[in-house]
Amino acid sequence: MSSTLSPAKLRRKIRSGEYTGNTSGLVPGFVQCNIVILPAAYAHDFLRFCQLNPKPCPLIAVGEPGAAALPALGDIDIRSDVPGYRVFRDGQVTEELTDITALWRDDLVTFALGCSFSFEEALLADGLEVRNVTQRLNVPMYRTTLDCVAAGPFAGKMVVSMRPFRAGDAIRAIQICTRFPAVHGAPIHLGDPALLGIADLAHPDYGDAVSIGETEIPLFWACGVTPQVALAAARLPLAITHRPGCMLVTDMRNSQLAVL
Amino acid sequence: MSSTLSPAKLRRKIRSGEYTGNTSGLVPGFVQCNIVILPAAYAHDFLRFCQLNPKPCPLIAVGEPGAAALPALGDIDIRSDVPGYRVFRDGQVTEELTDITALWRDDLVTFALGCSFSFEEALLADGLEVRNVTQRLNVPMYRTTLDCVAAGPFAGKMVVSMRPFRAGDAIRAIQICTRFPAVHGAPIHLGDPALLGIADLAHPDYGDAVSIGETEIPLFWACGVTPQVALAAARLPLAITHRPGCMLVTDMRNSQLAVL
Repeated sequence: MSSTLSPAKLRRKIRSGEYTGNTSGLVPGFVQCNIVILPAAYAHDFLRFCQLNPKPCPLIAVGEPGAAALPALGDIDIRSDVPGYRVFRDGQVTEELTDITALWRDDLVTFALGCSFSFEEALLADGLEVRNVTQRLNVPMYRTTLDCVAAGPFAGKMVVSMRPFRAGDAIRAIQICTRFPAVHGAPIHLGDPALLGIADLAHPDYGDAVSIGETEIPLFWACGVTPQVALAAARLPLAITHRPGCMLVTDMRNSQLAVL
Repeated sequence: MSSTLSPAKLRRKIRSGEYTGNTSGLVPGFVQCNIVILPAAYAHDFLRFCQLNPKPCPLIAVGEPGAAALPALGDIDIRSDVPGYRVFRDGQVTEELTDITALWRDDLVTFALGCSFSFEEALLADGLEVRNVTQRLNVPMYRTTLDCVAAGPFAGKMVVSMRPFRAGDAIRAIQICTRFPAVHGAPIHLGDPALLGIADLAHPDYGDAVSIGETEIPLFWACGVTPQVALAAARLPLAITHRPGCMLVTDMRNSQLAVL
């Protein structure tokens, strides 16, 4: 896949079924989103959940009820423009699909949430080393003992991602990510993982363990897996998300998310 | 001393010799400065030293050669408006004075450097606890093994100040101080003091040791004692500084120093 592809061209390949893979590293410079699709009956509670927990659930766009378009993010048909979907029924994954047109209903509401790809790009652009990128691994993610603020059926513990840095780079990483609240923002914790209830960094709950140097400090960011955990726990009759790693690629530039 | 005093009124009390004490906590909201006064023959090298080492030596104003005024900072007579002065001859403190009018020469150049009081005020205003303020102690300061970039006769190790915070507050403190590069800016290090060559936090080289909680992380800021150490090491025939804790109180507001 050419790295100079435009987001719209990539979405056309995805829409046609020509591309159904991971979107990590594709069309650099553009925002990729976590996707959650719910019946309208649950949409208000989920929106409140995002509003109450903005660090793990940074909302970038919400679709009109029944609309497959997300005009703020590009010429998008959310039923076919994500490379892979997961369908949840009563909290269980029942299908993995590459197109959900057949499941679409006029009461479905789409939520697009920020993703760490955007801030990782900003860190790399500043010359910082992002360990999971260097090691070509999925970022390690951990369930914490921190409770999200509940909204209706949506509740659960916060999930965090971890990236290790030496102290000076850790300070720089905090500065850079502070500019990007729409993609999880600054870390929520640094240092001792036990203070978050994490027993062993070598055994993440999701993703892969990465190496940590002797003089490095682990930095922990609120993670977009948090809303997925809350969604599964809510056991809705129907919910649809992107398949992990297969994000919605938008026309929005990462730099547009910078608050400064 | 009334806390609602204006900077100009406080300076008049200092100018007349009525007040010769510490300025910590006086006229909150206004910038206080470290002062270095040198013969013009050394001024260019000292200015370069500040430019090369902006974190320990953040320059706020430089006077005209021979001029006692610092118009950018208020109606100031630098010969009398600092509550206490130290006179260095050949690198040794030879006198502590409350007025240097008798020593003034038409080749003396005044440097006003930012001071941590400004960022401590911003931290406190955000609800963070600053340990040395809570414990009514001088902030602990440590000589590090980090070399400043030398300029002419000015060289030496960086001195840092240390304030402990829990992780979440440490991240917030980094964000807040990032807004204030003119008063040392973000910390330069956090975590393991040994990485800076500091053997024992309980034994600072300057100031007082403060308590550190079990779940707290030490944050280290570049410190305004650094230029004083470089100045003493340069063994100039004459140099004059403020007496520690007895700063120049200016008309500039701390908020004016915020870059954002």
